[in-house]
Amino acid sequence: MVDVGALVAELGDDVVVTDAERTEKYRWDRANDPDAGVPLAVVRARSTEDVQTAVRFAAAHGLPVVPRGAGSGLSGGASAVDGCLVISTERMTGIEIDPVTRTAVVQPGLMNAQVKAAAAEHDLWYPPDPSSYEICSIGGNIATNAGGLCCVKYGVTTDYVLGMTVVLADGTAVQLGGARLKDVAGLSLTKLFVGSEGTLGVITEVVLRLVPKQRPPATLVATFPTLDSATAAVLAISSRLRPSMLEFMDGPTIRAVEDMTHMGLDREAAAMLVIQSDEPAGHAATECELIEGLCEENGASEVFRTDDPDEGEAFVVARRNAIPAVERTGTLLLEDVGVPLPQLGTLVDGIADISAKREVTIAVIAHAGDGNTHPLIVFDPADTDMAERAQTAYGEVMELAMSLGGTITGEHGVGRLKRPWLGDYLGPDVLALNQRIKDALDPQGILNPGAVF
Amino acid sequence: MVDVGALVAELGDDVVVTDAERTEKYRWDRANDPDAGVPLAVVRARSTEDVQTAVRFAAAHGLPVVPRGAGSGLSGGASAVDGCLVISTERMTGIEIDPVTRTAVVQPGLMNAQVKAAAAEHDLWYPPDPSSYEICSIGGNIATNAGGLCCVKYGVTTDYVLGMTVVLADGTAVQLGGARLKDVAGLSLTKLFVGSEGTLGVITEVVLRLVPKQRPPATLVATFPTLDSATAAVLAISSRLRPSMLEFMDGPTIRAVEDMTHMGLDREAAAMLVIQSDEPAGHAATECELIEGLCEENGASEVFRTDDPDEGEAFVVARRNAIPAVERTGTLLLEDVGVPLPQLGTLVDGIADISAKREVTIAVIAHAGDGNTHPLIVFDPADTDMAERAQTAYGEVMELAMSLGGTITGEHGVGRLKRPWLGDYLGPDVLALNQRIKDALDPQGILNPGAVF
Ligand SMILES: Cc1cc2nc3c(=O)[nH]c(=O)nc-3n(C[C@H](O)[C@H](O)[C@H](O)COP(=O)(O)OP(=O)(O)OC[C@H]3O[C@@H](n4cnc5c(N)ncnc54)[C@H](O)[C@@H]3O)c2cc1C
Ligand SMILES: Cc1cc2nc3c(=O)[nH]c(=O)nc-3n(C[C@H](O)[C@H](O)[C@H](O)COP(=O)(O)OP(=O)(O)OC[C@H]3O[C@@H](n4cnc5c(N)ncnc54)[C@H](O)[C@@H]3O)c2cc1C
Repeated sequence: MVDVGALVAELGDDVVVTDAERTEKYRWDRANDPDAGVPLAVVRARSTEDVQTAVRFAAAHGLPVVPRGAGSGLSGGASAVDGCLVISTERMTGIEIDPVTRTAVVQPGLMNAQVKAAAAEHDLWYPPDPSSYEICSIGGNIATNAGGLCCVKYGVTTDYVLGMTVVLADGTAVQLGGARLKDVAGLSLTKLFVGSEGTLGVITEVVLRLVPKQRPPATLVATFPTLDSATAAVLAISSRLRPSMLEFMDGPTIRAVEDMTHMGLDREAAAMLVIQSDEPAGHAATECELIEGLCEENGASEVFRTDDPDEGEAFVVARRNAIPAVERTGTLLLEDVGVPLPQLGTLVDGIADISAKREVTIAVIAHAGDGNTHPLIVFDPADTDMAERAQTAYGEVMELAMSLGGTITGEHGVGRLKRPWLGDYLGPDVLALNQRIKDALDPQGILNPGAVF
Repeated sequence: MVDVGALVAELGDDVVVTDAERTEKYRWDRANDPDAGVPLAVVRARSTEDVQTAVRFAAAHGLPVVPRGAGSGLSGGASAVDGCLVISTERMTGIEIDPVTRTAVVQPGLMNAQVKAAAAEHDLWYPPDPSSYEICSIGGNIATNAGGLCCVKYGVTTDYVLGMTVVLADGTAVQLGGARLKDVAGLSLTKLFVGSEGTLGVITEVVLRLVPKQRPPATLVATFPTLDSATAAVLAISSRLRPSMLEFMDGPTIRAVEDMTHMGLDREAAAMLVIQSDEPAGHAATECELIEGLCEENGASEVFRTDDPDEGEAFVVARRNAIPAVERTGTLLLEDVGVPLPQLGTLVDGIADISAKREVTIAVIAHAGDGNTHPLIVFDPADTDMAERAQTAYGEVMELAMSLGGTITGEHGVGRLKRPWLGDYLGPDVLALNQRIKDALDPQGILNPGAVF
């Protein structure tokens, strides 16, 4: 066992935590991986320099490094590895906004919600909005290329990242890109680090692109008697219009949310869509009218529309609470498969079949406009047989998605949980290409070992 | 000298051209690099397989490979290297559009303008619009991460690339990404290849994201008595509004365009802005009104507005013709520096100083809303002293941009012409990081040697 005394001496015991009781909560992310290891120490870095010191120490001693944001990840990417240094960014929460260039320089530990709030003070907007926006860090968002609800119109995290500072595997800190909207000097390294899940370096500062504040959206909520009618409506809307949100919840999800919120959702519905338009005044209402027509044409049982942003937000909150609501009914295995939109109906039907066959509830929520679904597999971990069936279903859902031309992860990342399927998905040549880049940047393999690779 | 007979035998002499008269026109791109080499052969590939065959042959014989789109590049990235195989994509021009998922699968040799036209048939739009859109290929656009006029609102090429097929340095073809809006399985390799200028692989197919067709834009043209008043107006507009185009031409450019087009531009103006808004009906006019106010506040001498898209397009064409127009006055060294917007005025003033000091005309056009400028250095190659001064000015403009926190290339790429400045710009650590990835993917160094690296 490596003696971290030298590191504690260098950074102080306020930064380098070794006490097992305090390091315990850094072992898991929200995937609750039962195989999570026990860290040697947690480095609560205050600066790029602290991260460099820690990574240099790890490199010198061949220690695994697990970068950690807010630990809200759902793929086990931030689970600890035995004997690792967890590098936590929780104390790095600075932000500076330049309203003239509409850019923000942000430290990685700041929550997504706080980035949004700081931007709003200047009438600016940072669009990416994972449902977890109040409990996930911007560094984690960038490391996973997080998605969210408004991606359907506004794109994903990578579309808003102009530059970053990264500490590489040998402790070198490099600055990539910067507050320039266009810069093609050298390879697109900034974009390579986005979505790299802590396997290529530790992100210690980011430069974000902001846009003018969003217009107040109009909201439409539609319920459907069958899954097919709902997915058909999604396809009809997506191929004709461009809503700023197009979210889906199935029956089990609706009921779980209703049990938690008592807001009067239709417990009989097979599916519900929450849709927003943020077109300018006059045009949003028109877009919602067209959407209403398409929902009705496709068999919606009920459609509710509102121009009041607060009233609309209540339904968005319901959708955002779907995961915690379903979590109250059991332990979750959280899926994140995505398919080309025309396959959405087949995917959702196929998931129902898997649920029936494996006798586990699978509640489905989806960023439907992107074809990105989150089947939530509910099980009781005390029931080993059920836990096994849940695990089988988890793999079957990914295989189904692949067979439909889809991906095994649309936004949560591969982490540790999905690694067994990555090779099948990418195929040997693309996997080898990933590995070549990993080896070039982290020849010792100390950065987040077991995640992705 | 390697005998290409075996390659000719395999692919046919219609594909593998060795005749010096026919290969001559594949030696240069629009940078007209005097040091361009003489290719051993030009492979006019018809398919991914042809490209694989050619790259395998090159790898086996250690031959340099120069990927080539339409040869409109301005950094010498597609200049031939002595004894190389030029791989031309000119015959690979297929396109398939899926209006339901709003995606296009395109072969690399298709011109940008043809991609736009094919999308328009489905009421869809592929936004990236380099001024050269009628004479540049989509593969070249992706290899350079091309910019253009609408980037200021709609982003650059990388924002529209969902996937691609690439032939790697050993001839392996890999498929990266695909027609899925969200996919985070594995590293962001698609994005790494965007902007890689033919140094990491040959792109043989791309999957593009399309958006609903653009609304007919309203156009505003403003002239200014001084450079400072024009750049101040740019800053005022950019930080408050979000035009879909914000282009700048200085006095020498205006006069060159007027000489060519006789459209009645103000020959006395120090600068002119061409601005568009594509907000929905009603809102575009409002935005243009606000822009007009900001132009006037900042000292515009004349402002002209039109809601007629055709009338507006005439001014956009004038802007697009700026490079050819200035080219009629002499040989050009084409710059592409970009700065954070608040530095635009200082950059433009500094370029005027360099022009005076080096006694060469430097006409400046700019995608002003992005801070991306194209100083066009005009010289007579027969006048060696002048040619040298032009060359000195070329370097000085880049150094000026760097001193203002800017980049040496905003959209044209490093190619061969800007390579001497790349190290200064990136610094040794980032340069080494670029090199590590290059070495991992092209260990023999056969892909576009001399470009970027
Ligand atoms: C209720 C709920 C809803 C969610 N909804 C969404 C959603 O809509 N969209 C979505 O995309 N995700 C969603 N998530 C997943 C999660 O919130 C995102 O993946 C988020 O981006 C993780 O951020 P984090 O700060 O919690 O990162 P962590 O969980 O701490 O880490 C995630 C990964 O990033 C790496 N990492 C973190 N910080 C850094 C850094 N500074 N440098 C290098 N690597 C780093 C870690 O090593 C790990 O691999 C949801 C999660 C929950 C619990
Ligand atoms: C008048 C004029 C105006 C211009 N305006 C703009 C502008 O507004 N914005 C802008 O960004 N550029 C502009 N350009 C520059 C140029 O048009 C772009 O760089 C364009 O993207 C190049 O495309 P191409 O097909 O001509 O590529 P080429 O010149 O043939 O090649 C460019 C680079 O890409 C590589 N490459 C080409 N095809 C492939 C492939 N299939 N696989 C791998 N590598 C490949 C080449 O090796 C080379 O490094 C302008 C040029 C001119 C002449």
